[in-house]
Amino acid sequence: MALIVQKYGGTSVGMVERIRNVASRVAAARAQGDDVVVVVSAMSGETNRLLNLANQVSSHVDDREIDVLLASGEQVSCALLALALKDLGLPARSFLGHQVRIATDSAHGRARIKSIDSTRVLESIKRNEVVVVAGFQGVDEGDNITTLGRGGSDTSAVAMSAALDASVCEIYTDVDGIYTADPFVCPRARKLGRITYDEMLEMASLGARVLQIRSVETAKRFGVRVHLRSSFNDAEGTWLVEEDEQMDSVLVSAVTCDNDEAKITIRSVPDRPGLAAQIFGPIAEANIVVDMIIQNASADGTTDVTFTVPKKDHPKAMELIEKNAALIQARGVTSDTHIAKVSVVGVGVRTNAGVAAKMFQALAEQSINIEMISTSEIKVSVVVAAKDSRRAVDSLHASLIESR
Amino acid sequence: MALIVQKYGGTSVGMVERIRNVASRVAAARAQGDDVVVVVSAMSGETNRLLNLANQVSSHVDDREIDVLLASGEQVSCALLALALKDLGLPARSFLGHQVRIATDSAHGRARIKSIDSTRVLESIKRNEVVVVAGFQGVDEGDNITTLGRGGSDTSAVAMSAALDASVCEIYTDVDGIYTADPFVCPRARKLGRITYDEMLEMASLGARVLQIRSVETAKRFGVRVHLRSSFNDAEGTWLVEEDEQMDSVLVSAVTCDNDEAKITIRSVPDRPGLAAQIFGPIAEANIVVDMIIQNASADGTTDVTFTVPKKDHPKAMELIEKNAALIQARGVTSDTHIAKVSVVGVGVRTNAGVAAKMFQALAEQSINIEMISTSEIKVSVVVAAKDSRRAVDSLHASLIESR
Repeated sequence: MALIVQKYGGTSVGMVERIRNVASRVAAARAQGDDVVVVVSAMSGETNRLLNLANQVSSHVDDREIDVLLASGEQVSCALLALALKDLGLPARSFLGHQVRIATDSAHGRARIKSIDSTRVLESIKRNEVVVVAGFQGVDEGDNITTLGRGGSDTSAVAMSAALDASVCEIYTDVDGIYTADPFVCPRARKLGRITYDEMLEMASLGARVLQIRSVETAKRFGVRVHLRSSFNDAEGTWLVEEDEQMDSVLVSAVTCDNDEAKITIRSVPDRPGLAAQIFGPIAEANIVVDMIIQNASADGTTDVTFTVPKKDHPKAMELIEKNAALIQARGVTSDTHIAKVSVVGVGVRTNAGVAAKMFQALAEQSINIEMISTSEIKVSVVVAAKDSRRAVDSLHASLIESR
Repeated sequence: MALIVQKYGGTSVGMVERIRNVASRVAAARAQGDDVVVVVSAMSGETNRLLNLANQVSSHVDDREIDVLLASGEQVSCALLALALKDLGLPARSFLGHQVRIATDSAHGRARIKSIDSTRVLESIKRNEVVVVAGFQGVDEGDNITTLGRGGSDTSAVAMSAALDASVCEIYTDVDGIYTADPFVCPRARKLGRITYDEMLEMASLGARVLQIRSVETAKRFGVRVHLRSSFNDAEGTWLVEEDEQMDSVLVSAVTCDNDEAKITIRSVPDRPGLAAQIFGPIAEANIVVDMIIQNASADGTTDVTFTVPKKDHPKAMELIEKNAALIQARGVTSDTHIAKVSVVGVGVRTNAGVAAKMFQALAEQSINIEMISTSEIKVSVVVAAKDSRRAVDSLHASLIESR
């Protein structure tokens, strides 16, 4: 008899039939003798409906009240799931963030969980009840309602698993696991049986929108066994695991592609101390996240600085750079929104110096030009023209994953 | 500078434009230098939408989870109103039942307020914020969310006024006060400038659905000055006040008509001790509320028992009586759903023995037959045929109200 935490996302509780489906899944787990704690998101579309109401009454953003508003979404879905469970004859009890209690800091809209008091949840489990917890929400010290940001229910579930020392945290979603590449881009992509926390972290920050990054960090920190799987079938999904030696034999776990960035190049800037600060200070102040940065000094004492920003922030970034151009003494600014960042991720990258070389070789064979390169401990990313991205993913998958 | 509690019902916050309208009203009160605490209901239609979702996932009723579900309605409207207030540049802060904290018993769906901790609300007022409180909801000792039943936000507002010692509790609704009769029935009806708590209690139990009875009881108990008015105009409404001597000069304050009852008569029952218990025991067990009861002993040792029940419960009541007929030894059971209960309400009834006589005289002049009579300290009710009800209200209004 084990304690299982199951998390169901918005599409899994999007309609009443799906809520009944979730209740049946929980019942199946209970029938195997397991205790179940369920963490739910708001029904899909609900968050947007509420934000739309807020936009109609106010042109300002007020984080505290938006959190009160949005938290009602999970309140509704957890009450509905508790009702559906009882309808199946299972004792069940819903808990909101303040009832659990899930204590967070006061950063409304992107709060971090500080601690979880599991007393009441454990009492409820002892009474043989299925515990249904509203994801995404918590309370700060002043008892104000906070929310954890998009995908925050994942973090609620993982943190809950850590607090309860659950044997597994099952994250149910509309995909059935992590693939070696996007199957729509590379038809030969296959589902990974397991992936390390670090690889998952890289993939999450590379645009794979399967899990909130913070939930992976939390899982890694507390060693929570996470099983990512589909709520629409019973197939095994992908397990998030600690790295072990045997895994090093896998060179690369996955190839990812991010089409949401734009590239900006500042040409022939006089090279001098403080230059980077002058360029990136105003951009950071505008809350624009810069991803890759490359600076190459040339012999004539000037330098080219190239960097990428999210596509949506590209116009704002250009405006700031151009305003700043005289100060930087740049000879010109160019930009390109038709780019893709293609990456290979794998713990094998760390111990195998040849991964990057193999990557460049595969792209060269396809005559794909590499515009930027960036590396981390377990990944190599290149920027290529958007038109080349599918071929890039396909060839990298063939040479670095299928060939093993 | 006074402290005002304002309560806005579902129709007043039913659409986003109306929420903006409420925000403007609050702003106007603040502009006069008053501190304002606003209590809001769910947007109209929201409660039904949520109950409909619940019915789709469950055929059972679970009071605790239904309360969690329904409480989200007020959570949404109070967050939206706080946003709309801030949009007008007013500092504002929403409070849910557990944040205030509004402590209730554990009777889910019809909880009673036990106490209100006003500490946080007073701190917020001191910070010059408009306080927006979610009506209808509270928490029990175990921190479970409770709701106060239909119209419960009225009680939230009155109890809040009592806890804060507010100078007035303004209840905004879609009617502009209490009338001497239903203006649709009696065009000469006029708005009452004031009405006593006791009269309002009688009227509420006579089917005038303006205020939850419990809110009137609470107002009376704590001497809260309540001002019932429309959220769609600035006209003075009706004040609920303590009875004073001067008011006794008003014989009758209002004529009411309730068309939602049905009459059941059990004929020629052998008169014996325990008879009433035999008749009404099973009806009470079925949670059917019996209103008027009349029993007349006749010379032959048998008696007729007549009583009224809500129309919706009439079929069930008949079924119970018929099942029970052999035991009661009744010679027959008849019923009539085409009746109306017409009442005159006024503190003057208490000190003026002639009210009932005048009432009967007025009805006699119209050749309206009286089927049942029931009196309380400050009201006289008669049951007449439904077809006669408009004429009855009209003639009683003419003889008992207009003639004064």
